[in-house]
Amino acid sequence: MSQDVGRVLDALRSRRPLVHNITNYVVMNSTANALLAVGASPAMVHAAEEVEEFVAISDALVVNIGTLSRPWIEAMHLAVAKADGAGKPWVLDPVGAGATRLRTETAHNLIRHRPAVIRGNGSEIMALVGSSGTTKGVDSTTGSDAALDAARGLALSTGSCVVVTGAVDHVTDGERVVSCANGDERMTRVTGLGCTLSALTAACLAVEEDRILAALAACTILGVAGELVCGQSEGPGSLQVSILDSLARIDRTMLIGRAKLT
Amino acid sequence: MSQDVGRVLDALRSRRPLVHNITNYVVMNSTANALLAVGASPAMVHAAEEVEEFVAISDALVVNIGTLSRPWIEAMHLAVAKADGAGKPWVLDPVGAGATRLRTETAHNLIRHRPAVIRGNGSEIMALVGSSGTTKGVDSTTGSDAALDAARGLALSTGSCVVVTGAVDHVTDGERVVSCANGDERMTRVTGLGCTLSALTAACLAVEEDRILAALAACTILGVAGELVCGQSEGPGSLQVSILDSLARIDRTMLIGRAKLT
Amino acid sequence: MSQDVGRVLDALRSRRPLVHNITNYVVMNSTANALLAVGASPAMVHAAEEVEEFVAISDALVVNIGTLSRPWIEAMHLAVAKADGAGKPWVLDPVGAGATRLRTETAHNLIRHRPAVIRGNGSEIMALVGSSGTTKGVDSTTGSDAALDAARGLALSTGSCVVVTGAVDHVTDGERVVSCANGDERMTRVTGLGCTLSALTAACLAVEEDRILAALAACTILGVAGELVCGQSEGPGSLQVSILDSLARIDRTMLIGRAKLT
Repeated sequence: MSQDVGRVLDALRSRRPLVHNITNYVVMNSTANALLAVGASPAMVHAAEEVEEFVAISDALVVNIGTLSRPWIEAMHLAVAKADGAGKPWVLDPVGAGATRLRTETAHNLIRHRPAVIRGNGSEIMALVGSSGTTKGVDSTTGSDAALDAARGLALSTGSCVVVTGAVDHVTDGERVVSCANGDERMTRVTGLGCTLSALTAACLAVEEDRILAALAACTILGVAGELVCGQSEGPGSLQVSILDSLARIDRTMLIGRAKLT
Repeated sequence: MSQDVGRVLDALRSRRPLVHNITNYVVMNSTANALLAVGASPAMVHAAEEVEEFVAISDALVVNIGTLSRPWIEAMHLAVAKADGAGKPWVLDPVGAGATRLRTETAHNLIRHRPAVIRGNGSEIMALVGSSGTTKGVDSTTGSDAALDAARGLALSTGSCVVVTGAVDHVTDGERVVSCANGDERMTRVTGLGCTLSALTAACLAVEEDRILAALAACTILGVAGELVCGQSEGPGSLQVSILDSLARIDRTMLIGRAKLT
Repeated sequence: MSQDVGRVLDALRSRRPLVHNITNYVVMNSTANALLAVGASPAMVHAAEEVEEFVAISDALVVNIGTLSRPWIEAMHLAVAKADGAGKPWVLDPVGAGATRLRTETAHNLIRHRPAVIRGNGSEIMALVGSSGTTKGVDSTTGSDAALDAARGLALSTGSCVVVTGAVDHVTDGERVVSCANGDERMTRVTGLGCTLSALTAACLAVEEDRILAALAACTILGVAGELVCGQSEGPGSLQVSILDSLARIDRTMLIGRAKLT
């Protein structure tokens, strides 16, 4: 499986997919830099007047509901309907689902347009299956293991591949479950690495049709990139910077050597 | 007093308050990272449809008018009215007050909802008391000492605790004045550290009822965090990163050893 | 010519111009930091209710269409009409022109208000002269040399000075062409350095009436700043940070010693 993950990274580097991001203000810079670093071509485009046209020229789309507003929700719907109709893969990142009704409802409405992958933390995935779990704003209070049943249920009811991230990241289509134990607890102190993972997942989907493999590749790439630099980083500021360096430097051999997949 | 400041930092770390930010686009990433680094849990939420619900689950709120628009102003009013009604502490950062009528008026209108703390630079605080001071966009042309009388007046007329920052930061409720001389002139070359301070102030208010102490703790934490790394930073880019590392590393002993409070 | 470029940097440092930015969400933080680092005073202001007032107190304006929406387009028009009427220099950065109709049309409409400088990559400049060139989202698929004729034509038809950037940056008023070969290929892996260049160009225009010289100075300052640190950077994350350090450290002597101008 780690060989396949290495192959996805190589494909990403050789094809440099154009990834269309409708994402939150907090992470736009770090997400664009992460996509550039790993070898993709990012664009942030959200006006209702242009999102459909941009979906048409993009290789994949990520929709992240981290900072919502009515005009953006409208544009998100136009974009995902277009992606669904055109057979372009798209990723939903339901940031803060469960924290407010607007977020939970927006996520549910977007899901009707069949995301290839839904990627969230434990609290978010629990909220999407209607579990009365708890949330602390956009941070999770539920581990990924505890949310695995919810992830399976969400995958079965939606037809999407679901990724629930935490100490171990689980990827499931409702039947198979594959898991990635790469990463480091210190990465939770950097804002938006979950959002980065969703964007990397879109980049991998642009070059790999097997959605489980694409999602697993993204988890492994970011997890290994983080592990390679966590030890020598002075703190979360340095770590945010070093992960970008690491995403640019990481290669198939490093992935294969360090992947912790089951 | 430095013992008390150390105690606030420990309380913040043990309680990890959820801080709701309605802040400007420029600083969203650095503010979220600063809150995470120091030990709080940040969220950026600004849609009118969800701000009240989010205030209800948050421990404190910061409203920063650095990049305004009509829909955001509406959401800011909903959020601060809810915070005021629910007894949740909130901080106003009147970025650019005095530079345009929209900013000055917006700040005045928000103040009616009784912020626990108003934090601005000299020019901003002068503008809020109607002084015909000058401003250079969002940078101050008035030192904090020159604005101290204005800060006292603003505190008395509003009932808020006022923090006017500069080479020395002054905190006043209109009667008492406490001051913090920590920090370094090189920090003025990093964008948005004033905004970071406002967010840290909200985090401290979430765990400390004495508003003067909470505001003073935030000034001291950021000032000492900056001092610890200014000397070894290669320039303002490195400094922005190192301050995040420093906020994660700083502890009660460092604060007590380096605090310059009067 | 490199002596003149050095003089522009010194003027910028001594006058610290206030640069008004209406720019995209992705680069707001890095642009503000770059302007502060080089010695200017940045502000990000985009509400229709305040942009004209802010143009009036600013020394130069940059309008960047990287993340568009209807309210922002309206505010951009108010701002550039005011700048044009008041004789304040402004820079247009037509991010993604050619990728969607909204971007191409918005750029054309803004150009009627006579930007001092239009700064884009090869694909963007080609799109603005109606060439059926290709684009990959916001990344260029056309080199700056291939777009030089388009740049000349755009300068002649608009009266603006046009800068087309790439491996070599070309600056033209339609008749003269001056070029800057500073910079490093690795800078293309950092998001938004083109946007940074547009903002630096506005800062230089605030202190130098010769538009070609001002634009050339900005290209040289950013190119040399990048060269000085590319070799020792661990990757694109470190490079983004180091360029800010380098912008603060660069001086007239370094510029004169390293400028590659023709």
